[in-house]
Amino acid sequence: MIGLRPRLRIAQVAPPFVRVPPERYGGTERIVSELTSELVRRGHDVTLFAASTSFTAARLCSVAPRPLWGLAHYEAFPYELAQVETVARNAANFDIIHWHLDFLHWLLVDQLPTPSVTTMHGKLDPDSVRLMFAAHPDHPVISISESQMRPVSDLAPNWVATIHHGLDLGGTYRLGAGDGGYLAFVGRSSPEKGLATAIRIAIRAGVPIKIGARVGSSSQPYHDTEVEPLLGHPLVEWLGEVTDVQKVALLEGAMALLMPIEWEEPFGLSFVESLAAGTPIITRARGALPEIMRHGMHGYFAETDDDMVRAIARLDAIDRAVCRRWALDRFSTRRMVDDYECAYWRILEGGGVNATAAASAA
Amino acid sequence: MIGLRPRLRIAQVAPPFVRVPPERYGGTERIVSELTSELVRRGHDVTLFAASTSFTAARLCSVAPRPLWGLAHYEAFPYELAQVETVARNAANFDIIHWHLDFLHWLLVDQLPTPSVTTMHGKLDPDSVRLMFAAHPDHPVISISESQMRPVSDLAPNWVATIHHGLDLGGTYRLGAGDGGYLAFVGRSSPEKGLATAIRIAIRAGVPIKIGARVGSSSQPYHDTEVEPLLGHPLVEWLGEVTDVQKVALLEGAMALLMPIEWEEPFGLSFVESLAAGTPIITRARGALPEIMRHGMHGYFAETDDDMVRAIARLDAIDRAVCRRWALDRFSTRRMVDDYECAYWRILEGGGVNATAAASAA
Repeated sequence: MIGLRPRLRIAQVAPPFVRVPPERYGGTERIVSELTSELVRRGHDVTLFAASTSFTAARLCSVAPRPLWGLAHYEAFPYELAQVETVARNAANFDIIHWHLDFLHWLLVDQLPTPSVTTMHGKLDPDSVRLMFAAHPDHPVISISESQMRPVSDLAPNWVATIHHGLDLGGTYRLGAGDGGYLAFVGRSSPEKGLATAIRIAIRAGVPIKIGARVGSSSQPYHDTEVEPLLGHPLVEWLGEVTDVQKVALLEGAMALLMPIEWEEPFGLSFVESLAAGTPIITRARGALPEIMRHGMHGYFAETDDDMVRAIARLDAIDRAVCRRWALDRFSTRRMVDDYECAYWRILEGGGVNATAAASAA
Repeated sequence: MIGLRPRLRIAQVAPPFVRVPPERYGGTERIVSELTSELVRRGHDVTLFAASTSFTAARLCSVAPRPLWGLAHYEAFPYELAQVETVARNAANFDIIHWHLDFLHWLLVDQLPTPSVTTMHGKLDPDSVRLMFAAHPDHPVISISESQMRPVSDLAPNWVATIHHGLDLGGTYRLGAGDGGYLAFVGRSSPEKGLATAIRIAIRAGVPIKIGARVGSSSQPYHDTEVEPLLGHPLVEWLGEVTDVQKVALLEGAMALLMPIEWEEPFGLSFVESLAAGTPIITRARGALPEIMRHGMHGYFAETDDDMVRAIARLDAIDRAVCRRWALDRFSTRRMVDDYECAYWRILEGGGVNATAAASAA
């Protein structure tokens, strides 16, 4: 691609709460990190707006002396605004600005001299989100799944593409043997992720379950009342928050990832990581899951507890190598960055005066 | 004033989280309510942007079907943005826009065709706030105390005025007898408001203390470890959250308001309410307190616990009628709205093209 396409001056704008790449949790920051590194490797001139402790091959620009995570809102929020204003003030130095902040920058994005695009990282089903889309029909957006965009697809004439996340899965995960004799759960302890349901199903199936999960402050009540009472069962092993290394081992040894999600998951990095380890998935056909895996090929979709128990009994029919190959083909950094480069060019070539100027000047 | 000054078309923009006026807590919403009612009474054409359940003599404009309090951030925040954008889209219909949102609207306020002014309701000491002031030297701001503005006064060439809050104190409070034989505390259970210190001082002085307080989620740990263990003492009466009616009775009967604040309080409505009931104050000379009361006249400033105990012994030297008269003179709705009208005219007459056009067209 280098040599055929000119070098672009690209701004990547990440949330400034945790560093890029994140130490532990931060799906958005992980994706921004992968995207930024690969764009630099491909010869683009990339400026990364992100928390000050980020490390990147791009030019790093931070407005705050430390990541904002843990600061009180009245202290953090002016930094969030200052970050957006700093990008805006420097807009003329870029050919394209790629935002990962969901909505804050929409207040001024229509006034900028440079084309912008926003990857939506969150859920788009609240009515309030419809108001924002309705007010900004011209702003180019990229979704992380088809499912995520469904609630607002009628309001987004400038929906450029769905670009599924990609990671260096081949380098991080090996094809695991899955011979640990346990099911795995990796994610938040929350009703959305269905942890209590997963534990009950594992117990009914008589199979051990190992849980790598953190408890967010908003789901503490759920954890205390629904999950905690189940943790004493001899089949249940609670690992708490796991490191990346622990997560790899947990997934590579698991018979399956058992996560009976109870919401419209916009993407779900754990699922593609599981497949990269060769570990099939048992979940519900909600949100982005039908885009991430095929029923019967990479695991099973099941609705009821009975169906889930039956799915566990049928895991021998799944070829772990097929799971891994699918994940590495579909959810690689290379595929994701190919897609983003393509989207940038579509925006620049299809765009107005500024887009054309940028494309021909480059 | 009507007849001498033309009628202005004014937008008041309140935070959309609780209704105007608030049912219980919400100092900003109470002030916006007082200001809006009185501006309407004086003949101005006022549009109030606020939560949908607000009641007002002004034209009410809401972007969300219900107040945002209690919504998840990802659901509430797009409404906050949509409110700002709705004001901006309608800017040309107003002579002046008066914002009470602290900073969010600063992203687009410099582009509006109508002069704006922001009353800062929060604390201004974080470094992040300095960034916002430095980036917007031309935006007119009003502070609620001189003390509040001190951290950024070097960065605010367009600091229009300090306007202390005003309420209908004369109509709400009578001159209380203060003969209940107790000290009062009214506010949050938090280290900033010094509740644990207040209780210890009351116990040392051997005087009962009645506490009308709520426990915010962020100060729950403080409440559990510092305050809760003291509540069993026979001199201590915990009333929990109090209604407006309960608060009036609590203050009118109190010997003094004992609130040894441990932060730079930007204003503090409880203090002027206490004075309106004739109830003197024992506190520290921090934040706006030296602007709200005079030592020896309306109560006492004291730093150490010993000084506070001695101050309780000297309450007989305070004339409750003097306290009340001071509060009614200084912190009335009439005085506050006089000041705001004056500020609006200074901005419009001192302003640029649009300000002059608005003033002469009106």
